Amino acid sequence: MNNFTYYAPTKVFFGKGVNDSVGNFMREQNAQKVLLLYGGGSVKRSGLLDKLTEQLRSAGIEYTLLGGVEPNPKVGFVRDAAKLCKEQGVDFILAVGGGSVIDTAKCASFSAACDADPWDIITMKVPAEKRIPVAVVLTIAAAGSEMSNSQVISNPDIMVKQGLTSDFSRPVAAFMDPEITYTVSKYQTGCGIVDIMMHTMERYYTSGDTGTYLTDRIAQALLLSVKEAGAVAVEHPEDYDARATLMWASSLSHNGLTNCGKNYSGLVVHKLEHGLSGVFDNVAHGAGLSVIYPAWAKYVYKYDIPKFSSMAYNVWGISKDTEPSKAALDGVDAMRQYFASIGMPVTLHELGVYPDSFEKIADVITSGGAKSVASYIPLTKDVIMEIFHIAE
Amino acid sequence: MNNFTYYAPTKVFFGKGVNDSVGNFMREQNAQKVLLLYGGGSVKRSGLLDKLTEQLRSAGIEYTLLGGVEPNPKVGFVRDAAKLCKEQGVDFILAVGGGSVIDTAKCASFSAACDADPWDIITMKVPAEKRIPVAVVLTIAAAGSEMSNSQVISNPDIMVKQGLTSDFSRPVAAFMDPEITYTVSKYQTGCGIVDIMMHTMERYYTSGDTGTYLTDRIAQALLLSVKEAGAVAVEHPEDYDARATLMWASSLSHNGLTNCGKNYSGLVVHKLEHGLSGVFDNVAHGAGLSVIYPAWAKYVYKYDIPKFSSMAYNVWGISKDTEPSKAALDGVDAMRQYFASIGMPVTLHELGVYPDSFEKIADVITSGGAKSVASYIPLTKDVIMEIFHIAE
Repeated sequence: MNNFTYYAPTKVFFGKGVNDSVGNFMREQNAQKVLLLYGGGSVKRSGLLDKLTEQLRSAGIEYTLLGGVEPNPKVGFVRDAAKLCKEQGVDFILAVGGGSVIDTAKCASFSAACDADPWDIITMKVPAEKRIPVAVVLTIAAAGSEMSNSQVISNPDIMVKQGLTSDFSRPVAAFMDPEITYTVSKYQTGCGIVDIMMHTMERYYTSGDTGTYLTDRIAQALLLSVKEAGAVAVEHPEDYDARATLMWASSLSHNGLTNCGKNYSGLVVHKLEHGLSGVFDNVAHGAGLSVIYPAWAKYVYKYDIPKFSSMAYNVWGISKDTEPSKAALDGVDAMRQYFASIGMPVTLHELGVYPDSFEKIADVITSGGAKSVASYIPLTKDVIMEIFHIAE
Repeated sequence: MNNFTYYAPTKVFFGKGVNDSVGNFMREQNAQKVLLLYGGGSVKRSGLLDKLTEQLRSAGIEYTLLGGVEPNPKVGFVRDAAKLCKEQGVDFILAVGGGSVIDTAKCASFSAACDADPWDIITMKVPAEKRIPVAVVLTIAAAGSEMSNSQVISNPDIMVKQGLTSDFSRPVAAFMDPEITYTVSKYQTGCGIVDIMMHTMERYYTSGDTGTYLTDRIAQALLLSVKEAGAVAVEHPEDYDARATLMWASSLSHNGLTNCGKNYSGLVVHKLEHGLSGVFDNVAHGAGLSVIYPAWAKYVYKYDIPKFSSMAYNVWGISKDTEPSKAALDGVDAMRQYFASIGMPVTLHELGVYPDSFEKIADVITSGGAKSVASYIPLTKDVIMEIFHIAE
């Protein structure tokens, strides 16, 4: 087992009605001026935004609203948000939404507090040493950003999605009411399920681990539960326990629990997907992962039969009588079928991405072939294009 | 799934050599005057105490040493520790040891900061609103107090062990080097294994849960791993991965993770054991649990066949062909055999506790029959005595 640091200080308020206590919490935190950040109009239509601003008013806390965060959040918007924070003396950011809103909040929090351009923060030209505290009202179970130490921002000018990891970016608190997610569409629910699973699998499939059976079993416990809850939630969007399981799993999958002691140095397949959605902005992150992950797995499973077969037996329902290398591959197929069964795309074709774009995406990921992505083997430009062909 | 709050802010530094960075951490925390609290002489003999004081000196931090914390820590000692903190202006407590030392540190931290008698804090006559921060250098995998929100203190004058639960008592940081535990005796290792398992099982076996399969599977993942690691550690005390698994499991079993969403209102069987070791101070906590838990399970398993049988199938190796109610009971027997196999007592006789004391212990637990302990059914004085007879 490798050495590790585990630090997940976010205070989670989970369950029905917890969003009613946001105002009290902000008052306890001595918030004076809050930036209330959100995405599209759904939080307005649902009445959530009114509920939150009413609480802030009752608590005597000033606030500024800023809506319009897009999926694959853009550095330009972060810049605007940071500017607003500085102009208005914001001392607390309340992110109301999912991963895109939370990541925008995290990055703006650093940019404003450090008085630096957000792209310089994301690319670590300027160290993220100061921040405005961030709290989250979560509206979708997916990214896990509500407890995570990472944020991913897109720079459309250079078609790059870039992530920054820092324990300092973990939100102070997260309010999670599963009932809020009843109205999340089947497609977005599916994207979330894939994203949650991928955050756990990316930590599970690491080479050279020894003695990490506690962490690996927790990962499988999480994946099996998400598989079951996901199948229920896409059919019965108002099943509370299914929605609650997905929501809590979204946090646990990305807060560090599932890589304790492992040879984990960051997400791998996410990098391929970031290349894809960096070039094709209309590709939802979860949908991109749903297509690429099974193709990646089909390419690399042979380098780690023990882990791939264990996953097949314990999560994907492959009979323990099946010989390990066959079971490993059968497990990958079962995962792909599961994604399809919850309405997710499993081919690049379904995303409108065709072979004539593969080289361009692979160039973005590998800086024109100069770099590779570390996995069981180095994923070079050629290997990445081969993986895209498997996903064709 | 029930509503819950999850808050586990302790920063964990885990692995080989992490105790070398305690001094730097204390400096970063701006500690000026540290109380270094410990138990017996083993931390002196091992050189750990010298290593830590050397680091504090190098970091320019003053410190005071206080050794002598006993198992089942006593309120009188806590009083002395709190007095010392006040007299010397201590602003950080470093607990070097296991559960007894950490619990003493937590309670002294409240007592000194709130300027109140520790027994008034423990019995909640005085609210635990202020504290001196506590960090931990863990030397044994057992109590889980290094990340927990609880502390248990004994008052020998009235033969009572009393616990207090408050999120505010969670340590700021925990340094956990599994190699430190290589010298823990087979018996103490066994006591720790039982204590870790019990912290998880006490959260698992709660009545009226719905939709908690994610949490329940994490609990089973933890228990199966502890079972395996425990069997290795008692035979091969210097097996790093086994020792590391036990150490990390000790924290996860008691930091709140395994009761998220569950109908959990506190430890049950622990209350019976606290009665036992309140009357018989020479009974180690883990040894008492090893005897009482299987007896309790044998009495109540019929009220929750689904959970007891699932545990039997997934953790205790009972064949899935076995009919659930038989599997449930077989699982309890397998647990009891496992405890015996790692050198733990499984009868009260082995602890030197005979039937002529049963009523006295049951009186302590139930305040002379006036109260009962809430479990699947109310554990009245008569029921508790019946459980003791099963454990006879």
